Amino acid sequence: MSDQPSEPGQVERIGTSRLEAFSDGVMAVIITITALSLRAPDGSSFSALGHRLPALLVYVLSFAFVGIYWNNHHHLLRLTGHIDGGVMWSNLHLLFWLSLIPVITAWVGNAYKSAWPAATYGIVALGAAVAFSVLVRMIVRANGKESTVARAIGTDAKGMASILVYVAGIGFAFLSPWISYGLYASVAIMWFIPDRRLAR
Amino acid sequence: MSDQPSEPGQVERIGTSRLEAFSDGVMAVIITITALSLRAPDGSSFSALGHRLPALLVYVLSFAFVGIYWNNHHHLLRLTGHIDGGVMWSNLHLLFWLSLIPVITAWVGNAYKSAWPAATYGIVALGAAVAFSVLVRMIVRANGKESTVARAIGTDAKGMASILVYVAGIGFAFLSPWISYGLYASVAIMWFIPDRRLAR
Amino acid sequence: MSDQPSEPGQVERIGTSRLEAFSDGVMAVIITITALSLRAPDGSSFSALGHRLPALLVYVLSFAFVGIYWNNHHHLLRLTGHIDGGVMWSNLHLLFWLSLIPVITAWVGNAYKSAWPAATYGIVALGAAVAFSVLVRMIVRANGKESTVARAIGTDAKGMASILVYVAGIGFAFLSPWISYGLYASVAIMWFIPDRRLAR
Amino acid sequence: MSDQPSEPGQVERIGTSRLEAFSDGVMAVIITITALSLRAPDGSSFSALGHRLPALLVYVLSFAFVGIYWNNHHHLLRLTGHIDGGVMWSNLHLLFWLSLIPVITAWVGNAYKSAWPAATYGIVALGAAVAFSVLVRMIVRANGKESTVARAIGTDAKGMASILVYVAGIGFAFLSPWISYGLYASVAIMWFIPDRRLAR
Repeated sequence: MSDQPSEPGQVERIGTSRLEAFSDGVMAVIITITALSLRAPDGSSFSALGHRLPALLVYVLSFAFVGIYWNNHHHLLRLTGHIDGGVMWSNLHLLFWLSLIPVITAWVGNAYKSAWPAATYGIVALGAAVAFSVLVRMIVRANGKESTVARAIGTDAKGMASILVYVAGIGFAFLSPWISYGLYASVAIMWFIPDRRLAR
Repeated sequence: MSDQPSEPGQVERIGTSRLEAFSDGVMAVIITITALSLRAPDGSSFSALGHRLPALLVYVLSFAFVGIYWNNHHHLLRLTGHIDGGVMWSNLHLLFWLSLIPVITAWVGNAYKSAWPAATYGIVALGAAVAFSVLVRMIVRANGKESTVARAIGTDAKGMASILVYVAGIGFAFLSPWISYGLYASVAIMWFIPDRRLAR
Repeated sequence: MSDQPSEPGQVERIGTSRLEAFSDGVMAVIITITALSLRAPDGSSFSALGHRLPALLVYVLSFAFVGIYWNNHHHLLRLTGHIDGGVMWSNLHLLFWLSLIPVITAWVGNAYKSAWPAATYGIVALGAAVAFSVLVRMIVRANGKESTVARAIGTDAKGMASILVYVAGIGFAFLSPWISYGLYASVAIMWFIPDRRLAR
Repeated sequence: MSDQPSEPGQVERIGTSRLEAFSDGVMAVIITITALSLRAPDGSSFSALGHRLPALLVYVLSFAFVGIYWNNHHHLLRLTGHIDGGVMWSNLHLLFWLSLIPVITAWVGNAYKSAWPAATYGIVALGAAVAFSVLVRMIVRANGKESTVARAIGTDAKGMASILVYVAGIGFAFLSPWISYGLYASVAIMWFIPDRRLAR
């Protein structure tokens, strides 16, 4: 299709609707495909069901993780006036990290007692957190420091805190994976609580 | 992205369109992924096909189940003026329960004669019914008791009846799974019939 | 959510956009999930690839099949003014049959020389064709015989012809599955050609 | 549904929105399903993770591949005024080739040292590149040589270069698959760089 995006003026006219629709589609598929990592229990007894409980808990964490990204992505794009190529690629970069959630959830669900699955979960979470942070920066650059979106974002303290906690979680996985899972869950809770408070 | 949703005024401006699009995406994937639990028959004979018949019937039930939720969700959101964080999280909570449909359908399809799969199917159905009821309440709270949506919902007698029948179905699974399947199917029929009557 | 769709006046206000979006989502997932029935070849040689060729051809047929339904669904809904509960359930009924395409494609791809897979493919195709025909009738009923959509549909000769050819294909599968595949492909070509002619 | 698209005037009224929505849906599912080819590592050690690294790299290539098509498709359709049957079928033809990405990614991820998987990856990439080129031509034909979209497309030099490099990649696979992977990656980089430059 070649050269049509080479006129800068044209790019500024891109609205956010198709970017949102595509991101919604990808996140909707990720959240549902992740549930496939919950293989049906082998056998029909209660203990067969019980053996899938750790995988279910990991799935709950991953579901919350993707749900929070969808929620934040929704808020961010709603305030965004226009986007450019940098925003589009940053968005794809974020979706790339999120697309690794199903496979890492499957791995942790099967081998949750081991260090490497727990650490790799943190690496994927860290990649997504950094990618979201880059996306925010690209949107601010495309819309200007005085734009609605730039003022609304502020200092991004929670984004920075998430990144630090994920780094800690990766390291602690080699001491005990349970510490890592606790740290990852605490990030989810940190993002979840203010929205609940807000809703009152 | 941090703090931009902390201004209450902002939240009220959220429209329902992206929430609907995301929910549609998730439900579309759930309904299709569930069909994957219908593994192709082993072999090419009629009896190989016949062995998959119970799984097909469970699939029909699950398809109707998700279809009814999509239909009700569609009607509910169409009447909803605005949403807040509580509505968004309640909606994700509903999608969480629905996302367990593919794996529980696969389990019941393989072990339909046993108590635990039948009971677990009821637990997932109950979780979704409660989550839908919570979503309705959150929407009423966000829109006010005098809003169009609040008046249209009324007493939610069918939602309450569904919850009771699912609880009964979970209990009866340990007597005979067939009673449970009959109860679950009766809930689907209860939701299905009025819409047919309406269409005339 | 109970009783809000019981006022007839309300139903007429339903637009087609969310129905289209949901159907698009389901068909998009079906078309892509079907490709998963193309398991990667076992081994890395040319003959390993060659062994997957029949499955590839069945996939091409199924892809064309879903593509034609998407195309026809698109044309039909574009002309439709408003929808009611009957249209919504007829649409879900069509999606039910289409959702069986991935699993039947997988079965035929693995056991294409046998009668029952070929016949079952025809049963699924027949179910979808009948469901589309019912959907058309429900839309005409909801919009009136003098509506744009009713006049555009006309006699639905191609829909009737498709149903007859699928019935023949189911029967011939027990003589030779290849006749059935030829008949199914001829239906696809019948739907495909006029659109190509039209494009000139 | 028969004959309603047989009035040429009617076809011109088709907008691009549902075509875009359906294509977005298919590409969103493809990009996520491809990640399923990244099976969870067998075991929980670092070396088990390391064995999946080649599959991860192939996935990165495929993700970039689909991302670039989504990006180009987005730009192309945004400039397109109206579409006809030829455009719709060309678009489905492009989606057909893209839908083969998950299975070919799975094959290459498991057998990346062999000639045939590397060559087949190139065949799929070539099919998609040719299909995109055909889609561009169909859109120009439907909108006229003086339309915005026709002028924006220009000579399509990058599209032609991609096709040539893919042909070379298919041939070189039988000398060394690594040359093929390098060539395929170079096409992705060629499409990626200008958009980054543009974003500044």
